[in-house]
Amino acid sequence: MFSLSQLANTYQQFHDTSGIKGAPIELYAPVNYIMSLGGKRARPVLCLAANDMFNGDLQQALPLAYAIELFHNFTLVHDDIMDQAPLRRGQHTVHKEYGTARAILSGDVMMIHVYEYFKHLPDAAYRQVISVFNKAAIEVCEGQQMDMNFEDRQTVSLNEYLQMISYKTAVLLGASLQIGAIAAGASLTDQQLLYKVGVDTGVAFQIQDDILDSFGDEASFGKSIGGDIRQNKKTCLLIRALELATGDDKAQLESYITNNDIDPEEKVAAVKQLYLKLKVVDAAEAMRLEYHKGALDALHSLSLSADKIEPLENYINSLLQRQV
Amino acid sequence: MFSLSQLANTYQQFHDTSGIKGAPIELYAPVNYIMSLGGKRARPVLCLAANDMFNGDLQQALPLAYAIELFHNFTLVHDDIMDQAPLRRGQHTVHKEYGTARAILSGDVMMIHVYEYFKHLPDAAYRQVISVFNKAAIEVCEGQQMDMNFEDRQTVSLNEYLQMISYKTAVLLGASLQIGAIAAGASLTDQQLLYKVGVDTGVAFQIQDDILDSFGDEASFGKSIGGDIRQNKKTCLLIRALELATGDDKAQLESYITNNDIDPEEKVAAVKQLYLKLKVVDAAEAMRLEYHKGALDALHSLSLSADKIEPLENYINSLLQRQV
Repeated sequence: MFSLSQLANTYQQFHDTSGIKGAPIELYAPVNYIMSLGGKRARPVLCLAANDMFNGDLQQALPLAYAIELFHNFTLVHDDIMDQAPLRRGQHTVHKEYGTARAILSGDVMMIHVYEYFKHLPDAAYRQVISVFNKAAIEVCEGQQMDMNFEDRQTVSLNEYLQMISYKTAVLLGASLQIGAIAAGASLTDQQLLYKVGVDTGVAFQIQDDILDSFGDEASFGKSIGGDIRQNKKTCLLIRALELATGDDKAQLESYITNNDIDPEEKVAAVKQLYLKLKVVDAAEAMRLEYHKGALDALHSLSLSADKIEPLENYINSLLQRQV
Repeated sequence: MFSLSQLANTYQQFHDTSGIKGAPIELYAPVNYIMSLGGKRARPVLCLAANDMFNGDLQQALPLAYAIELFHNFTLVHDDIMDQAPLRRGQHTVHKEYGTARAILSGDVMMIHVYEYFKHLPDAAYRQVISVFNKAAIEVCEGQQMDMNFEDRQTVSLNEYLQMISYKTAVLLGASLQIGAIAAGASLTDQQLLYKVGVDTGVAFQIQDDILDSFGDEASFGKSIGGDIRQNKKTCLLIRALELATGDDKAQLESYITNNDIDPEEKVAAVKQLYLKLKVVDAAEAMRLEYHKGALDALHSLSLSADKIEPLENYINSLLQRQV
């Protein structure tokens, strides 16, 4: 078995030497630009870790890991156009750098190229990987649409929120693990357990992200604190607060959401106070722990010895223990 | 064997009852909107005709024909955003009707759904179809980028133009025929001949479209005449004219291209006169006939009797004999 840092290093080497070569350059330069912007590479590492747990062939798994990262980056390119985001990882987004038309088209060609990286698989695995990938990819689009819908809605239920983050973010982590496991010949039961490990980890991560966006440490979180509150984003904190608040608290919360004249810093501080008073941070933290536990329980149900599970367990714990 | 009108009718029935059902509705309404706007359905008909020539199972070929039409419509949705086109087939384009964000995302989910319609194929055909489809789909994106590049360039060679229209338009016609043939178990030689039939037909069709845009009959062509000339579009006529013109003709042609103050109707009339004087219409017509002949020669090289070939031959001739 490889350690996770070995897998991460091997992946990064493969990534850095796997730029898509093609013409015209105007189409492929944006592809290689977004792929070189960096990031945690969590999805490829999960794919390789799952593959390695079941004694898969690393060389066969690397193109699959790359395909998933290519898909993830395609979604970033198109999402950034939809969100009109100017920056991604401190650099220009693709549409800012190359214009919207090229960003759309480069994203499209990335999406098609994804399937090219599955070709080396034997027949049964080829079919299963495309099936698992396609389901997740469709759900990612559906999750993005749900997220856009939420912006226009007055209220969103916690269940709707959980489905949205599951589709938009978590299912691709599940698919990353399952695809790695398929390539290694794992049983369907083990594949499905790993899928659940990924989905629960993804949901827990997103809940944590909601908490950190309001209560994190700016330096370690890597973006400015309070952005979700300033934009009235329907996070699990706001959804729960709107459900729980009564009387003056409710009136105050609603006035902060609807009144655009309030000083942003005053708004962030006041809404955070309300969140603490209503104990929605505690509730979110409990929910985060529940999903974290769900992931670990599924992991420990795999037909594998503890030493095989340990690296992935450590990785999940490191993802989910960013300091609040 | 079925007649082409039987295949077209059967396809349209399948098409009309195959809308993608999914949630959220905001994501799938634009998909079903563009798919219901109509069109010739040339690609699905070609796919079914090729399948039927080799005694394929119509029920197995219908989802493949639908997948290709789905892909084609996905490219229309995204191309219309890139071209900022307000109308498509007399109706709002998807981004005009639903906004750019939903048009991008709906296009993306169409693209992923394409692969779902290949799933029923047996292993070998499944792989071959995805391989042929992916190559064409990637080339369609590359062709669209070439087309966008040409707008910013001073000169384009005839060979560059032919590669662009081949990629942007023709390869998908070739792939439609080849995919139908794969599903019917045709030999690789026959598959490749049919691919050439489609590509040559597509190139001939596009050259014809360039001629009709300047010299067609407005009523039968279906759009206003002279649009390419007004927009300085680098058609095979303009490219050839810029190569052939000398002296005053060259100066006049270049002034029409660079001078935005000229009355559009005067410009269209004068450039058409120059095209006739330089005999570029005759040259384009000769090129169109050459590709038309290439398609028919490849068709007659198939390992099939004349009666099997006849319906597709008639269809190609009908596509390529729109009146100038």
